[in-house]
Amino acid sequence: MPALTLDELRAHLGGTLRGDGGITLCGGASLESAGGDQLSFLVSAKHLAQARASRAGALIVPDSLTEDLPQPCLAVANPHAAFARALGMLHVEPGLPPGRHPSAVIAEDATVHPEARIGPHVVIGAAASIGARSVLHAGCSVGAGARIGDDCLLHPRVTVQHGCIVGHRAVLHAGCVIGSDGFGLAWQADDSGGHWLKVPQIGRVLLGDDVEVGANTCIDRGALDDTVIEDGVKLDNLIHIAHNCRVGPHTAMAACVGIAGSTSIGAYCQISGAAMISGHLRIGDRVIVSGGTLVAKNVRLPGVYTSVMPLMTHEDWLRNAAHLRHLDSLAGRLKALETRINALDKDDAS
Amino acid sequence: MPALTLDELRAHLGGTLRGDGGITLCGGASLESAGGDQLSFLVSAKHLAQARASRAGALIVPDSLTEDLPQPCLAVANPHAAFARALGMLHVEPGLPPGRHPSAVIAEDATVHPEARIGPHVVIGAAASIGARSVLHAGCSVGAGARIGDDCLLHPRVTVQHGCIVGHRAVLHAGCVIGSDGFGLAWQADDSGGHWLKVPQIGRVLLGDDVEVGANTCIDRGALDDTVIEDGVKLDNLIHIAHNCRVGPHTAMAACVGIAGSTSIGAYCQISGAAMISGHLRIGDRVIVSGGTLVAKNVRLPGVYTSVMPLMTHEDWLRNAAHLRHLDSLAGRLKALETRINALDKDDAS
Amino acid sequence: MPALTLDELRAHLGGTLRGDGGITLCGGASLESAGGDQLSFLVSAKHLAQARASRAGALIVPDSLTEDLPQPCLAVANPHAAFARALGMLHVEPGLPPGRHPSAVIAEDATVHPEARIGPHVVIGAAASIGARSVLHAGCSVGAGARIGDDCLLHPRVTVQHGCIVGHRAVLHAGCVIGSDGFGLAWQADDSGGHWLKVPQIGRVLLGDDVEVGANTCIDRGALDDTVIEDGVKLDNLIHIAHNCRVGPHTAMAACVGIAGSTSIGAYCQISGAAMISGHLRIGDRVIVSGGTLVAKNVRLPGVYTSVMPLMTHEDWLRNAAHLRHLDSLAGRLKALETRINALDKDDAS
Repeated sequence: MPALTLDELRAHLGGTLRGDGGITLCGGASLESAGGDQLSFLVSAKHLAQARASRAGALIVPDSLTEDLPQPCLAVANPHAAFARALGMLHVEPGLPPGRHPSAVIAEDATVHPEARIGPHVVIGAAASIGARSVLHAGCSVGAGARIGDDCLLHPRVTVQHGCIVGHRAVLHAGCVIGSDGFGLAWQADDSGGHWLKVPQIGRVLLGDDVEVGANTCIDRGALDDTVIEDGVKLDNLIHIAHNCRVGPHTAMAACVGIAGSTSIGAYCQISGAAMISGHLRIGDRVIVSGGTLVAKNVRLPGVYTSVMPLMTHEDWLRNAAHLRHLDSLAGRLKALETRINALDKDDAS
Repeated sequence: MPALTLDELRAHLGGTLRGDGGITLCGGASLESAGGDQLSFLVSAKHLAQARASRAGALIVPDSLTEDLPQPCLAVANPHAAFARALGMLHVEPGLPPGRHPSAVIAEDATVHPEARIGPHVVIGAAASIGARSVLHAGCSVGAGARIGDDCLLHPRVTVQHGCIVGHRAVLHAGCVIGSDGFGLAWQADDSGGHWLKVPQIGRVLLGDDVEVGANTCIDRGALDDTVIEDGVKLDNLIHIAHNCRVGPHTAMAACVGIAGSTSIGAYCQISGAAMISGHLRIGDRVIVSGGTLVAKNVRLPGVYTSVMPLMTHEDWLRNAAHLRHLDSLAGRLKALETRINALDKDDAS
Repeated sequence: MPALTLDELRAHLGGTLRGDGGITLCGGASLESAGGDQLSFLVSAKHLAQARASRAGALIVPDSLTEDLPQPCLAVANPHAAFARALGMLHVEPGLPPGRHPSAVIAEDATVHPEARIGPHVVIGAAASIGARSVLHAGCSVGAGARIGDDCLLHPRVTVQHGCIVGHRAVLHAGCVIGSDGFGLAWQADDSGGHWLKVPQIGRVLLGDDVEVGANTCIDRGALDDTVIEDGVKLDNLIHIAHNCRVGPHTAMAACVGIAGSTSIGAYCQISGAAMISGHLRIGDRVIVSGGTLVAKNVRLPGVYTSVMPLMTHEDWLRNAAHLRHLDSLAGRLKALETRINALDKDDAS
């Protein structure tokens, strides 16, 4: 692992030094587990007690923090972002040796940048291209005519199907699938009750720059036009994005989210875990969807949206949920009571 | 890409020509993006304005359409199905060269049809068989004794486990798993609180003909008997089908659906995205389940079924959802009011 | 397949023989499909009629069963567990030949136990280790420094990322991913509206002994500290476990469950299918979460917890669900009525 002094980190990250910048750091860790040669951080005074008790060699702290700490500190405006950058300098993930592993199967007319690193059992199809410094780990499959930009990281067993475009600096996690067929079916009547006819899916997936796609997440290719994921979109694991969706820049989705076909999602949205968005909808910018929420209509205004049942003991749920099937009649009875009490009131008053 | 005249398409698709059938088409596209050598389609008069503005070279239109269009048209009863077939003729997906890639590992006693195409790093186990014209893309794994029918298409990294049977014309998308173990556990008491014992799963998965399985979808093998997916079933991405389920012919399931163990689903059902069906249930024919719905009881009659909370702003949700925990008491208070008002009414009348 | 007499099975399983122990059994099956040389079982008198009609050669029955059955029986305290063990003796899954397949790519400094079996196209990274009798099927990828214990079974295309630790006797199903990056993002303001910065995920995943992980399930590595799955945990397919989670011993989760980051789940819990648990929560021991339930707060006490809408026909749902958006106003109107009727009652009494 690389080692850097706090002074050297400050040269990269900016900020104000508090204490001795000469300390050498060779990694990052949480306040609880950091040792004397490790960097840690706090985002607010809320964690001051843990910071004081921490054995970390140095801390990144918010520059609004006025309290003194025993460790040398680097005070910055955005400690989380600064710590993320510091980690990127102090830790190096195991990579691949330069060049192409002999077991990789690369089409003759594919263009693989000489500085790309191609792992064992990778398959690269006809006329595909791989950009500079991109790393394709074991068992990745890049289809015919697909393009992977520069500085991409494809973890093991990623599939990028034919014709799809991946921008620069993408991180594609293990097992994700870019460009599987959309779920396009036409109903065909026949003599025995009818059957589904597959509609060929001839669009592509276009991933912008700085996109991250989680493990085993699937993004379907467009039916006729393309599925588009714009710059800076971050997708967690086991997400499904159907054909012809468009996801605006810098939108983040947590794991297990599903987006049905032809839905368009704006910029800077946050879709929490297991939320589901129906098809053919328009979701505006800066919309936040709560975990487990089903969105079945357009959402134009920024804000937080929710649609979940609150948790109860099963016993309470049995008692309460039974009434949900009769809510309309319950509302009707309430209305009737209001009418009757109005009549009584009038009688009373007369 | 192949090129066909509208006349040639009509020879395959049937229908009535309106205008010049001599135009040569070399692809399909949406009304918005089609160019002069491309075919597009409309399913109803609702899209007439877009059709008139479209630069498509020719259109497939419903034969009920009476309005004239500037482009040559093929009028058919079912434009969506006809367009799907036309796309299948005008577009060819990148395939594989004939034969077996030298990096494939094929058991000596496996039966691979001479017209099958086996991609790089495919593994085919002992006594497995692969039918005529089937294509297995990079990294697929077919277990011992498994059988893949004729004209199947296995995208990269599909796993078909030992003993499972795939019918003819299957399309299995990247990363799907056919025949993983069912989740069978027996509770075993012991001196330290007990533990789960794995129950060996010795059934198989049987896929009928014309089945499509989405990317990263999992179908578990039966515990003792088989998990059965009948002819014409279409499954989208990231679906889970548990052990011993039976899915009737021509049922379609959208992405992120989960079906728990031993549930039987009828023919011609439509299970929308992220719906979940509990175990040991019987769902009849032609049942439609809405997106995000949990089905926890048998459904015998055809129809549409739903169980979701409607979407609200989080603020509204906080206000409204609080009462869900007290719905039973609310209903009780309503009942009490009715009793009291009845008494008052009686007093009033007396 | 191995063949054993009922006497031989009894020697391994214990229990009391009822009838002739000399019968030879060469497999297990359900009561309905078992033949004369197969073993079946029943867990209670509820299945007595099927047992009497069964053509099974022998049965495992609960020792509390007093009724006579036509077949030779082995009476035990826990028939499900005994049958699971019997199946393990009567059925052998197709395995791998001893040694390393020549197409496997194994780092020079990796430690692979001589009794391990390494399948085709497996990749094992630098300084990784594989324990005795562990089997890695086709296309598995084990990252640098990862450790796989003894007697593990990795189905095709499993990914274990760098540095992760898998205990003894793990069963990892096809396509699962152990140690993908957690979804760690820091918000970084910039001149054009801001963007997400990836936070390097430097923790590991630690799997205890006797853990089972379902097909295409993903377990993210910790951000700084580790994600920990304790002994005996059983996970079904398509589950997501986020970074820094801890799952206590012998907890079982059904398919499609999602656990958000930094949540801790106790021992002996049962999380049913498609349940979702929010981040940073504490779930106690022996908590049972119903299918499709969203848990968004801490749960300390053992018990069953639920949060789902009951199923209705869509028509009924439309009628009833509309009121959910006005539940607060409905409750307010009820309260107002109570006040008014109290006033009327007082008038009446006066």
